[in-house]
Amino acid sequence: MTFRFELKQTDGKARLGRLHTAHGIVETPVFMAVGTQATVKGLTPAQLEEAGVQVVLANTYHLALRPGDEVIAELGGLHRFMNWRRPILTDSGGYQVYSLAANLKIDDRAAVFRSHIDGSFLELTPEKAVRIQENLGSDIAMCLDECPPFDTPADYRDIAARRTIHWAQRCKTAHRRLDQPLFAIVQGGTDLGLRIRCAEALTQLDFPGYALGGFSVGETTQQMLTALEPAADALPSNKPRYLMGVGKPLDLLLAVARGIDMFDCVMPTRNGRNACAFTNAGQVKIRNAAHQRDSAPLESDCSCTTCRQFSRAYLHHLFMADEMLGPTLLSVHNLAFYSRVMAEIRRAISEHRFAEFCQDRLARWGGGFL
Amino acid sequence: MTFRFELKQTDGKARLGRLHTAHGIVETPVFMAVGTQATVKGLTPAQLEEAGVQVVLANTYHLALRPGDEVIAELGGLHRFMNWRRPILTDSGGYQVYSLAANLKIDDRAAVFRSHIDGSFLELTPEKAVRIQENLGSDIAMCLDECPPFDTPADYRDIAARRTIHWAQRCKTAHRRLDQPLFAIVQGGTDLGLRIRCAEALTQLDFPGYALGGFSVGETTQQMLTALEPAADALPSNKPRYLMGVGKPLDLLLAVARGIDMFDCVMPTRNGRNACAFTNAGQVKIRNAAHQRDSAPLESDCSCTTCRQFSRAYLHHLFMADEMLGPTLLSVHNLAFYSRVMAEIRRAISEHRFAEFCQDRLARWGGGFL
Repeated sequence: MTFRFELKQTDGKARLGRLHTAHGIVETPVFMAVGTQATVKGLTPAQLEEAGVQVVLANTYHLALRPGDEVIAELGGLHRFMNWRRPILTDSGGYQVYSLAANLKIDDRAAVFRSHIDGSFLELTPEKAVRIQENLGSDIAMCLDECPPFDTPADYRDIAARRTIHWAQRCKTAHRRLDQPLFAIVQGGTDLGLRIRCAEALTQLDFPGYALGGFSVGETTQQMLTALEPAADALPSNKPRYLMGVGKPLDLLLAVARGIDMFDCVMPTRNGRNACAFTNAGQVKIRNAAHQRDSAPLESDCSCTTCRQFSRAYLHHLFMADEMLGPTLLSVHNLAFYSRVMAEIRRAISEHRFAEFCQDRLARWGGGFL
Repeated sequence: MTFRFELKQTDGKARLGRLHTAHGIVETPVFMAVGTQATVKGLTPAQLEEAGVQVVLANTYHLALRPGDEVIAELGGLHRFMNWRRPILTDSGGYQVYSLAANLKIDDRAAVFRSHIDGSFLELTPEKAVRIQENLGSDIAMCLDECPPFDTPADYRDIAARRTIHWAQRCKTAHRRLDQPLFAIVQGGTDLGLRIRCAEALTQLDFPGYALGGFSVGETTQQMLTALEPAADALPSNKPRYLMGVGKPLDLLLAVARGIDMFDCVMPTRNGRNACAFTNAGQVKIRNAAHQRDSAPLESDCSCTTCRQFSRAYLHHLFMADEMLGPTLLSVHNLAFYSRVMAEIRRAISEHRFAEFCQDRLARWGGGFL
């Protein structure tokens, strides 16, 4: 099975497509659920499938540290380990090294840092990031990149982008698994010229897919959107485009309008755990006393397990009583909400009414989501 | 629908029966899962059904405090509130008043105490305990009792037992719902004479079922077993007998052998949340490093969702990484284990080989469970 991206249709810059992976087909644009430690927090694989999750994203950095990628390989790979039969994408660990690790020292050779778990010294090289992901057996692997914060001085941003290109080349050379495509990551922050140069250099290396990294790292949504369109335009149109770590429902919509195919974000699950549900009428803070006697579901037209089975009053009660089931049920709903939004986006593109759909959702969500 | 207990068969003192309730039939002997706050911690109703749970026990004290029994009544009762379609038994709040409430003052009129949630003053009378349970709409309600610790001085134990009888009478008088049987609770600690006098007095009041309270409150297993047999013998044989708050798998077995039909205990779920799984080979501490690379399930012959889908290595990883899914998956297994034990007990009784079954399980479990 060789990875393949099928671009089925466009509507303006929005793209309808399909990823053919070793674990099945993914309809794009797609939102991927974050399962950092080989589990989407609090949800069983069956609950993820019911919520319409097509792809789970797992974190190279976390899994290499615990339980270890070799342990997972020995146990038959990440799919078997977590009992998830649909596709898995693994990030490269780059982002976590910068956000979680302590005492980071980075040069062209490697990132050297201390584990956030036990403080032990660890080293991540492009070759090692690839080997770990090959051990995990994900359906899509990512190159190791350097992801500086958005307010990094221009000269360092330049160094990080050049290092990202250099590392992408080394990742490609090190990569062996034919059943696993390796995507490159474009850096450059909100510096458009740098982004485009980075995208062009990586395009010349000919990867099966490209990610835009270094967004959602502190810049405003407007800054992101301004940089996003030319950054997406600079990527080859026949390859999938993945905007890492984004975002709110409205962000997804606006990014699809700029030609993005893939997304991941902790927001649906993290907000769910924090008693916050996404609905078409805006975010619902379920701890709010207004919900105490409300027999209605979170969303009356939602067909997720949570909305079919439980009232706002019950969900309110679970959070007030600090019951584990509350975070689980809100995460289920939020992932189902994201799945539904993506399915609606795909349908709108296929029916050539994406611009209209965007207008409608902007009007509905404008106040509640941004 | 009127409640009915059908005694199908006996084998020695062990009894095979059926409870006919407003929400369906319960095969006895039965173990009931504890769902204190209208949720068995971390499990959806679907997961409970898959684990073979026949009855959920909810707590009057907790639910009266939060969200309030009138809120639940307004929302259509406890079954609809928590979306559990099988039977529910509610305890009376007596045990929680003594174990959780602060500044308890108790006399024949009422128990007056402070809420463990916000310290507000509350009062529980027999009439109020009944009204709360009628509001909740459980399939089996319990009389308010007084449950002193096992080392209570004899004179107070006597007072508590007499008050329990007096309150049972008042509960019966106050009770209105015809679809809800009200069970009486026998107290008396390990004082056999007192237990038997209490049982006789309550039997004269003619309740549809009887519970033995005040066990598993600090006495040894041997003390419990010694008192249990005559206490059970003192109850009418045509009514169900419920041993409250017990227990370990071996306790269930030994109590069935003494004529008990119903049980509840937090052990399968609490131990599950604390990384401890029940198996026929003893308890498995899943955090133990021995499980790190173990591709086997918790129990190879267990058909629960956890054992069918996940390895010990994965469960070990979830607990080491503090992931919510670990407690959920171990609770599922432990409840399925308890369901399986009860089903095996019922089969053994029906095939008149319960004594043999007991011997076998005593030999298997003796070291691991007691």
